[in-house]
Amino acid sequence: MKPTITAFANSPDRGRGLARDMRVRWALEEVGQPYDVRLVSFDAMKTPEHLALHPFGQIPTYEEGDLALFETGSVVFHIAERHKGLLPDDADARARAVTWMFAALSTMEPPILDREIAVLVERDKSWSGERLPLVDGRIRNRLGQLSTRLGTSDWLDGAFSAGDLMMVHVLRRLSSSRMLEDYPNLAAYVARGEARPAFKRAFAAQLAVFTAAASGR
Amino acid sequence: MKPTITAFANSPDRGRGLARDMRVRWALEEVGQPYDVRLVSFDAMKTPEHLALHPFGQIPTYEEGDLALFETGSVVFHIAERHKGLLPDDADARARAVTWMFAALSTMEPPILDREIAVLVERDKSWSGERLPLVDGRIRNRLGQLSTRLGTSDWLDGAFSAGDLMMVHVLRRLSSSRMLEDYPNLAAYVARGEARPAFKRAFAAQLAVFTAAASGR
Repeated sequence: MKPTITAFANSPDRGRGLARDMRVRWALEEVGQPYDVRLVSFDAMKTPEHLALHPFGQIPTYEEGDLALFETGSVVFHIAERHKGLLPDDADARARAVTWMFAALSTMEPPILDREIAVLVERDKSWSGERLPLVDGRIRNRLGQLSTRLGTSDWLDGAFSAGDLMMVHVLRRLSSSRMLEDYPNLAAYVARGEARPAFKRAFAAQLAVFTAAASGR
Repeated sequence: MKPTITAFANSPDRGRGLARDMRVRWALEEVGQPYDVRLVSFDAMKTPEHLALHPFGQIPTYEEGDLALFETGSVVFHIAERHKGLLPDDADARARAVTWMFAALSTMEPPILDREIAVLVERDKSWSGERLPLVDGRIRNRLGQLSTRLGTSDWLDGAFSAGDLMMVHVLRRLSSSRMLEDYPNLAAYVARGEARPAFKRAFAAQLAVFTAAASGR
């Protein structure tokens, strides 16, 4: 059954593939599963209909028959469990890949998202210049640890997995900060993810949504 | 095979069950799996030996034969997959329970942890009094949405699951803020989790570590 996901009708990233639907699109492309997209406006995200699908009023959501999911970690894991290509067959390697999914979302992403708050939401605060370096310090601490663990490997634990997919997408949110330039192996790791044909197809699909919306304005 | 987890030799929470090993202990108690605990000091957490187990230098870790895991989401999921009691048998209900695990860790926990930074790390900053209400606003937004979704249900999706275990533990980190008092159904939800015999056994086990360390000082 062809699943339906939701995505921003007007993505705030202007099609740069930073919105979270990108993770789900990329996972679906990796496993070769076609999907439909329903675009939602910021207003529509606050309606009871959307909140029934996503209690926190965000995108993406994932619908497949009677099943409705939210949280990209859960959706990507669901896709990975039901198709070959995103999780290893070996049980221990599989558990480690799941570990990296959680590491991407609960260890790496929070300080990176906090940076978006510091840069965008707190821009006009008198103390934003003092807080941003503290946030950047927390991000650098995590980047240094991740860089050490990755070392000279292509991927975090053997073959490319859903753990790498999530980690690469989380790290991409740092692109405007240029912080990754200080961690060449992480920058190369992100580039390796972006070079995958499935990533490129997913990126093109979300960019096409932005381009169409922009040309229709 | 009896797994070994790591926990703080000197927990900063003084045995109040807020440290993350509590989640793993609770999960192991729910499924009736005995375990060993290795206590680690803050210095030991930065050694190459510990970083080999946990690249981000934290606790808990989970070792079971040749398998070594970190990230409580991953560890609790691993336990839940291999024993009965923490995930439903029905595939769709199982996917929804996993969704709540990710929601607890990547949607609810980040602003709650940010509050700990605002209260503890930024205490002496001139702007801490201005930032804390912004953080609290983000937490209240999420609590309101979660409260609406929970409604009058006992648990987030039918029977108690690993999703509830993670969510209850994440919400417990708000205890000192007393914010949950404004959301009676969430306060009752947390109390319902804390009343489970498995929670009580896990809580007693981690408190015993603190009590023993304190009496030995």
